[in-house]
Amino acid sequence: MKSILVQFDTDVQPSVFDRVVAVDSGVEQLFAYGGVTPETVESLVHGAIFTRGVHDLSSTAIFVGGSDVAAGEQVFAAVQEAFFGPMRVSVMMDSNGSNTTAAAAVLRARRHVKLAGSVAVVLGGTGPVGQRAAELLALEGARVRVGSRSLERAAATCESIATRVEGAELDPVATSDSDSVATALAGAATVIAAGAPGVQLISAETLAASDLQVAIDLNAVPPLGIDGVEMTDKAVESGGVVRYGAIGVGGTKMKIHTAALKRLFVANDGVLDTEAIYRIGESLEK
Amino acid sequence: MKSILVQFDTDVQPSVFDRVVAVDSGVEQLFAYGGVTPETVESLVHGAIFTRGVHDLSSTAIFVGGSDVAAGEQVFAAVQEAFFGPMRVSVMMDSNGSNTTAAAAVLRARRHVKLAGSVAVVLGGTGPVGQRAAELLALEGARVRVGSRSLERAAATCESIATRVEGAELDPVATSDSDSVATALAGAATVIAAGAPGVQLISAETLAASDLQVAIDLNAVPPLGIDGVEMTDKAVESGGVVRYGAIGVGGTKMKIHTAALKRLFVANDGVLDTEAIYRIGESLEK
Amino acid sequence: MKSILVQFDTDVQPSVFDRVVAVDSGVEQLFAYGGVTPETVESLVHGAIFTRGVHDLSSTAIFVGGSDVAAGEQVFAAVQEAFFGPMRVSVMMDSNGSNTTAAAAVLRARRHVKLAGSVAVVLGGTGPVGQRAAELLALEGARVRVGSRSLERAAATCESIATRVEGAELDPVATSDSDSVATALAGAATVIAAGAPGVQLISAETLAASDLQVAIDLNAVPPLGIDGVEMTDKAVESGGVVRYGAIGVGGTKMKIHTAALKRLFVANDGVLDTEAIYRIGESLEK
Repeated sequence: MKSILVQFDTDVQPSVFDRVVAVDSGVEQLFAYGGVTPETVESLVHGAIFTRGVHDLSSTAIFVGGSDVAAGEQVFAAVQEAFFGPMRVSVMMDSNGSNTTAAAAVLRARRHVKLAGSVAVVLGGTGPVGQRAAELLALEGARVRVGSRSLERAAATCESIATRVEGAELDPVATSDSDSVATALAGAATVIAAGAPGVQLISAETLAASDLQVAIDLNAVPPLGIDGVEMTDKAVESGGVVRYGAIGVGGTKMKIHTAALKRLFVANDGVLDTEAIYRIGESLEK
Repeated sequence: MKSILVQFDTDVQPSVFDRVVAVDSGVEQLFAYGGVTPETVESLVHGAIFTRGVHDLSSTAIFVGGSDVAAGEQVFAAVQEAFFGPMRVSVMMDSNGSNTTAAAAVLRARRHVKLAGSVAVVLGGTGPVGQRAAELLALEGARVRVGSRSLERAAATCESIATRVEGAELDPVATSDSDSVATALAGAATVIAAGAPGVQLISAETLAASDLQVAIDLNAVPPLGIDGVEMTDKAVESGGVVRYGAIGVGGTKMKIHTAALKRLFVANDGVLDTEAIYRIGESLEK
Repeated sequence: MKSILVQFDTDVQPSVFDRVVAVDSGVEQLFAYGGVTPETVESLVHGAIFTRGVHDLSSTAIFVGGSDVAAGEQVFAAVQEAFFGPMRVSVMMDSNGSNTTAAAAVLRARRHVKLAGSVAVVLGGTGPVGQRAAELLALEGARVRVGSRSLERAAATCESIATRVEGAELDPVATSDSDSVATALAGAATVIAAGAPGVQLISAETLAASDLQVAIDLNAVPPLGIDGVEMTDKAVESGGVVRYGAIGVGGTKMKIHTAALKRLFVANDGVLDTEAIYRIGESLEK
């Protein structure tokens, strides 16, 4: 029985990127849909679960993607609501690469820093990748500072993560200028910059003056997020700081993406959300 | 040469259901199109018939589907009009599963009742599945009562079927309430309930008081069409009546669908309409 | 690693024709996109170039098609602008079959006439196929007369070709009626009729009175472009003129199309435009 991946993309044109990775992960038949909405996804899901017998449903799976992460979350929820008890297939959500990127960044940080008990800062922490990175750092027991230009949004993100991660230590911090960023980094061992493309968040001086052990910049559009971290940096040590750029994290991200797609076909009840994808990435580190 | 199935779906998103069945029937390459209209299908058909040589055209075929059966019929006709003499490919129409469902229901009924000469009632007989079931029952020589809330529409359906089935015995019946349904069932050996989802057409009392030998309910949304027939019933005998629910008929339907898809690639001139699909199902019974 | 062809079609529905040829050329995975515009193609191209490693990019390629050749040219240009240095894939443009048809016509003409130094006329020479045929004839050293009802547009086409073909000898000619067509053909050895479908450009008398050695008509909709050339003519000699109709050229066109698709996967930096596709066709003649 051939493996079928049904790709639900919230963009008009389904992502070429996600299709290529699906093919390279070994998917035999890929059904790519663009312009998918929570309202229209139900009958498509029913088509996926009411064709093959229940014992063959592990050969069918669903991937939710697209550039709009909030829209993807809604489709991801609607897909799960359309299942009927055991009549279900495994589903993975990775709109805009948000889950695989956050997982890759935290797993890379973990190679160099003992996260549990140490301070980790996420700049751009209210965006889709930033929120996910903060959640995963909290899962690892880090004391997480969620940075945003808006303290209010940072606080909302912290509250949201706290409902999912028991015992999480989360502090919202306003990071509106160079001084407030320096303050946010005080005593921190880890920083993940997940801000908007083309916006510098940390100057070279601030980086040099920090106590950071690892600095990861996920921005791939110049000017980059951390002055002193190159896009291709991959565990480059300089001035006592291990540095990663967006491309430097990309290899790990791609491995996680591929492994998660393969995991979809192991059983028919997988729900690959932020944490599940992180755990898959974790298993690759061993 | 790889087998190619071109799926013309009248819905915006081409059916996942039809795609999965196509893959599982062995189709190697599936080109799925959504939003297909009679006006836009011609150039797509030309692309299918003017590429491979005439001797290879049996490796290409067309499937017409979608939730709107009337729209599918128009596309089915337009596809056939776009052929050029021997430059043609086989084509199957099964919008909303209408042909395979009707075929499965009648073939299942035939296992338990001698249809020729006996009375068969189709409730919801003017809908897409009901019309097709009535036509197939007439083909088998049954005396068919086509039930509808509107006697006028029932009569129109009877007239339409009479033009296609020589010597058909068809009677329109108004089935607007419990009493008229009981009257319609008087002396009938077979009933197929093909009404709207979630609408009960036959009460338990009416069923018990009838002379029916087989009762088939194609409604898959509670409340079901026949009180006393479960969705999963498959040849369940009780009170002298053999009962089938929508899921109980589903296995036969799926086998017919798969066999019909395979038949598409036997020659390049197949036209798989209601009767042709029924004949394929019939050949599976032997 | 599976070969992936990403088809960017400017029509709403991606061409079935191009998909079938892609499958038959051996492409393993075909990602077909309809409604592609220069504005929306960039992120799709990035998905194609930022997934596989640079050494594997020769297994991914892009095909630009659709019925609107001008729109296809814009997408073709936008695709190339979206590449990043070595991060690129091979790309072929053949909207409406324009490049493969023009190449096939000129290669067929070349079998019968020494093009260098002889006069070749292209009627409908300002249309997408006509322009390309004129360019290829100029490349072969023919003295090309570009015919159009509008002398102004013919002149513009000549100027455009002159910028691409060094030393090209090009003359615009107005071909508004039978007399002007006869004048345009005076002394010509070759004519390619690439006018609008269903419009006759050369009468039987004009053809008989000409000095033509080869007459190729690419019109596939009656009335054909040259009275006396049948659609299926393939090197049919009559009255001293070797004749080709649209279908007669079609076999060569299809071979060029298939060979060009295969060429896409030889390296990751191919740009298959009019001349490159012609050169591929030329290599098949040997």
